[in-house]
Formats: sequence, C-alpha cells, structure tokens
Amino acid sequence: MTIADRWLLPDGMDEVLPPQASRMEELRRALLDLYHRWGYDQVMPPTAEFLDSLLTGTGSDLALQTFKLTDQLTGRMMGISADVTPQVARMDAHSLKRQGPVRLCYCTNVLRATADQHQGGRSPVQVGVELFGHAGIEADLEILHLALASLTAAGAGEIHLALGHIGIYRSLVQAAGLAGDAERALFEALELKSPGEIAERVAESVEDPALAEMFLALGRLHGGAEVLEEAREAFAEAPAAVGAALEQLRALHQGVLASHPEVAPYFDLGELRGYAYHTGMMFAAYVPGYGQALAKGGRYDDTGRAFGRARPATGFSMDLKLLAGLSPSEPPCDGIWAPAEGEGLHETVVALRGQGERVVQALPGQRTGPAEHRCDRELVLIDGHWQAVAL
Amino acid sequence: MTIADRWLLPDGMDEVLPPQASRMEELRRALLDLYHRWGYDQVMPPTAEFLDSLLTGTGSDLALQTFKLTDQLTGRMMGISADVTPQVARMDAHSLKRQGPVRLCYCTNVLRATADQHQGGRSPVQVGVELFGHAGIEADLEILHLALASLTAAGAGEIHLALGHIGIYRSLVQAAGLAGDAERALFEALELKSPGEIAERVAESVEDPALAEMFLALGRLHGGAEVLEEAREAFAEAPAAVGAALEQLRALHQGVLASHPEVAPYFDLGELRGYAYHTGMMFAAYVPGYGQALAKGGRYDDTGRAFGRARPATGFSMDLKLLAGLSPSEPPCDGIWAPAEGEGLHETVVALRGQGERVVQALPGQRTGPAEHRCDRELVLIDGHWQAVAL
Repeated sequence: MTIADRWLLPDGMDEVLPPQASRMEELRRALLDLYHRWGYDQVMPPTAEFLDSLLTGTGSDLALQTFKLTDQLTGRMMGISADVTPQVARMDAHSLKRQGPVRLCYCTNVLRATADQHQGGRSPVQVGVELFGHAGIEADLEILHLALASLTAAGAGEIHLALGHIGIYRSLVQAAGLAGDAERALFEALELKSPGEIAERVAESVEDPALAEMFLALGRLHGGAEVLEEAREAFAEAPAAVGAALEQLRALHQGVLASHPEVAPYFDLGELRGYAYHTGMMFAAYVPGYGQALAKGGRYDDTGRAFGRARPATGFSMDLKLLAGLSPSEPPCDGIWAPAEGEGLHETVVALRGQGERVVQALPGQRTGPAEHRCDRELVLIDGHWQAVAL
Repeated sequence: MTIADRWLLPDGMDEVLPPQASRMEELRRALLDLYHRWGYDQVMPPTAEFLDSLLTGTGSDLALQTFKLTDQLTGRMMGISADVTPQVARMDAHSLKRQGPVRLCYCTNVLRATADQHQGGRSPVQVGVELFGHAGIEADLEILHLALASLTAAGAGEIHLALGHIGIYRSLVQAAGLAGDAERALFEALELKSPGEIAERVAESVEDPALAEMFLALGRLHGGAEVLEEAREAFAEAPAAVGAALEQLRALHQGVLASHPEVAPYFDLGELRGYAYHTGMMFAAYVPGYGQALAKGGRYDDTGRAFGRARPATGFSMDLKLLAGLSPSEPPCDGIWAPAEGEGLHETVVALRGQGERVVQALPGQRTGPAEHRCDRELVLIDGHWQAVAL
C-alpha cells in the first residue's frame, strides 16, 4: 500500500485544517450564543444509541442513512446518530419531562452511511434548535425567525425561503384512501418533481376525479405568494385540514414579511424531499451559490410518543461545515513571538497570556520564525525588561 | 418492548442535559482559548476513517477499542475514531506538511468499543494539544505546563503529576533480547503492578542476572524525587539510553518545580498502562476524588512515518465530560421574560437580544412562567414603552 492510499479519506468524511477549523469554532460560538439569547438551553445527545431507540418513529430514509454497529458489551445493534433532531425529541419526552414549552439547542458531529445530494457530506456538524410543547403558529414563526437570524449571523446576504406543508399531501392521501405501494409510488413521483411521472401514478391509483386533479395541482403549485391564492381555488373542495394548512402558510408568510421584508418567501406545496418525520409546516432556506438548503426544518409533532410523551415539536438544523463557507475568514496576524529562553522571560510570557495575548514561544534550534506563526510583534529585552516590539 | 427499555442508553454512551451541557461548552471555550493563546491552531479530525489509516502504528489496544463499520460506498472497512492523537499526527505529517514546530489542538467526540477503567466512559469528548517537529525537552515541558494550566482552568485545586519514561523499559527489553510472547507477558505483569507476577516472568525469560535485577527494580521504583536517585544506582550498568531517560525526567522535574512549586511530581518508572504508541516521557495528572487520570500524555515520535514524514511529537489529552465535573456550576437566573404579544414588543425583544440579553418570550396559552425559565426580570409596558422590571 502506498502512502497516498493509506491516507485516502472515505468520500465525504473530511478533516478540517486551520484556519477553517477556527472559523467553524467561531461560528459555533456565535450560533450557540444566539440561541442562548433566545432562551434555548444546550444539550448533547449520545453519538451512538441502540438501534431500537434511534430509529423509532423516524422513517426509512433515516434507517438507510444510519451506520450500524454491534455493541460488544450487550451484543445488541447500535446506530451512529445521523440526525440529532429525533434524539433531542426523546430527551425532551423522556429525560427532561418538563411542563410547558421547552427550548433546546445543540451542535454536534453526525455520520451518514450514504451521501445525500440534498444534505451535503457524510460527516456534517449538525447545529440547530428544537421547540417542544407548543402547537401554535407562534412557535413555528419563532423557529423561522431564528433560522433567518442564524443564516444572517453566519454571513448570508440574500436568503431565499421555501415554505411547504406536509399536511396538504397527507390529507389528500387519506381522502383518496391511498396506502402501501401505491402511496409510496406517488410520493416518489412528487419527490422527483416529474409532471409525467406524477400524472401516471395519479391515473393508476386515484379514482376520484376531483382528488386526482388536486394531486396534479400539488405537483404544479410552486412559486410566489400567488401560489397560496391558486391553492385556495385548487383545493376548495379538499378536506378541511388542507384549508387549515394553507391558512397556516399564509400566517407564516405574513409573519416573515413583517420582520424580514427583504426575504420574499416562496411556496412549494408538493415539496416532500428530505422531510422524514414532519407533520406540519416545513421550510428550507437557500443562499445563492449553494445548490442545497443551508437550513431546513419544520413541525414534527408526537415523535416522543413511543418514549412516553406525545409533544408538539418544531425546529430546524444546519450543517456547520457548509455554513462556515459563507464568510471564510483569514486568521489575523496578531501574535507575539518569544525567544526560546531568557532571564525572567517565563514570567513575562505568562503575564501576557493572562492578558489574553497570543504568545508563540520559539523552541531551541527552530528555523521558522514569527511570520510563519502569524506574529506581528516580538519580545525583546530592553533595559532589563521584556517588551513587545512591532515587527 | 416497554418505554423504559426502548429508551435505555448503551452503557457508557450518555446524553448530556442542561445545565451540564452549558458547563461543558463553557469549558470547551476556555480550553481552546487557552491553547490559542499558547499558539496552538485548532483542527477537526474525521470521525470515521478507513481502518488501514486509522490503526497504522497505534498498537493493538487501540484496535480493540475501535468500532468497525463497512463503508457502503467502497465496501472497505472503516473505524470510528477512538483516539484523536494519531489522527492529528497524520494531519501534521500528510496534510499540513509544514516546516519546523507545529502546534495543534482539538476538541471532539470519540467512541470506544470497550469501557476502560483508566479512560472513563465509551463516549468521551476528547480535548487536547499536540506539538510536532521538536525533539527537545523544551517541547515536553511546554506540554506539561499546558496540561497543568488546563486542569487549573477547569477548576482543579490540588494536582498530582505522575511522570514516567517508556524508554527505560524499551531499552531493558532490547538489552535482554526479549520479544514476542515473553515480552508481552512481562509487559502485562508490569501493567498489573504485581510484584509476584513480575518476578515470575523475569525468572522465566531474562537470563542476565544484572538485567533481571533491573526489571525487578522497574516494578518497585515509584515515589517521590528520591526515586530518581535510587534509579541512578539501580540502572548504573544499564544501556546509555536508560541514563538519558532518567536525565530527561530529572530536567522535567526541575522545570515543573520552577513554575509550579505547588505540584510535587512523583515518578513511576514501571508505569505502562494506557500508553499505546508512546516513545519517550509519559505523564498522567490526577486530582483527589477522581480514580482515573484527568490528563494523560507524553512523547510519541514518528507516528507519521507511514504517512510520509517521521516527526518528533509530544502532547496530551483529556475528557471534557470528566473535566466539567471539577467545578459544576448552576446556570444564572439572568433572563428577561417577555409576554406573547404586544404593540412594538418584537422590536424591543430584538433590540435587547442585540445587546446580549437573554429574552425568553412566552407562547400563547403557556402556563409555565419566568421562574421556570431562569428569568429575573419581566418586560412591562409603562407609559407606552416596554421596560425590563425586576421580578
């Protein structure tokens, strides 16, 4: 095996070098501080759990993306966390057991067995927030606002916000009595956004002509605020839940416009990709130049039911690795270079570091100098005192 | 399956709830900032790598502790990082390729397949530093000082520092011509610190009576600074490398005493436990009340050889989860409670958060109040202005 082979990293499992790692750390802090100011408490979910707990109620997409391991202590199967959100929902339902709304945030490494175009690499650093215990539009709006504030904090300029609602599709499926393979085939056609495929599946499995028309509309209804008007007509005869979902989207639209007039939301009522466990409104935030969403979230009520408490839930998450690319920063040249030894030098170095200065001490025989170590000053002995002198 | 069963976490794979997670985040920042001030640049090694790279040159202990996975994209075996240090050595050797000394630091989750009494749980958050490219005692002393500074930053009062040097054992083994099973058996006897076992193994496999006497001394030589004196006599006839190792320990002792007179180092010349890839001085720092070392490190030259560059290396690491227990802190009650709605309220909340205030907004119908959300003030509308009033 050659050296190059031995070093090859698995596709999508990357190392982060300086200065990119510092930029990510800086952004991690800015985001967790932002969430703290909004009243969100930090949690750290386990990196590995028994598969039974990890995948309960989360759908088959997540099961495919989860790396499996045998636990040598018990012989049971474990999985490496591929998505922190359901874990946090279980912590709320089972470990915290608090009354009333609970706001939680996190920033942690996850691993994904397969690379997903819509989610980036296989080793994201997932950062996000979850708000449990409130079913109202106010909670969803808080989450939307916080997602926009997060992207702004990361340095995003222009933000495009896509809004959808899984309740529309679910209500139509229920009204049409679709299930099993037929439902899955239609779901996949909508995921593909292929009008031909959608028409074919609808013709195959939806008997009621009015409902068939509505499924076709679902694949077509995406665009600006006018989509909500068109949807009101297209779904006039739909089950009441569809109307309620449209009304929620209208209210969210108004809420976003009121505080973020620069973000013109658009709507995609047939968007289903990458929402494994959602039950209500769903959103994705895009920034020009990035093919994939930088923030993604929505409502996912009752995930905790299997763990003792069914709770309303809404939240979003992002990949810190992607986000850090929004505003790359060069590390400043701001250090003090110290010689390897000298009378009273140690005390001076300790004191300067205590004042918050970055002091890089030379090692005996070292050939690289202050420039290679981002130092703009140098410690020099003047009249018996060590002083930092500009280089 | 009952709810309790479904939730059970694997032994040693724990979740971290508030306020413990905030305390860990606070300590993470304090330590990374400390390393920054000492000139260490942050890196983030991959969580999973091909097993070939992950385990090259790291010994069988690490192989046993590494969770294995099949990479679905290539069919090759991957491992989850169980120890970040060898990964960072490869980053220095292969990715950074810098001349001269390189200082790197990290803080990241690792997983271990088996629980190790000497290392804590199976899901530590490993935080530490590595200094590459300098073989001198000055580099080792910098690492020792930084380990002590880290523990102090974490809130440790009394620190006990154990010093050893793998070069003593290695030189004696070479001189005695020990290898294979015989060497392994003697190593394990020394690990167990069992005088009877050591005597038995030495009698079995060491023919030279002078060398046999030295191996027995190795198991006996632990204690205060007087141990170095005793060792000088016991190893007077040993290979020159043993004398050099003792001289290094003497110099490190002097260096630590000069700047940390409160830390009285002790010596354990036969200590071999948990040092998988070390080549020179080794140390462990203990704090009363903790059965295991809170910081552990030493010199491990040439780990990067298989990856293109043999470089001198020294460093240490700690488990942030353990460290955070040194000074548990209650989160302050320092927030502002805001009502669910009100004229001009949104702007006030945005402004207060912009000033760094923590503002928790009630959601319509919420029954919990400011006390449950650690708020000491409340926004009240007075004369048409929202004002924060003490509760």
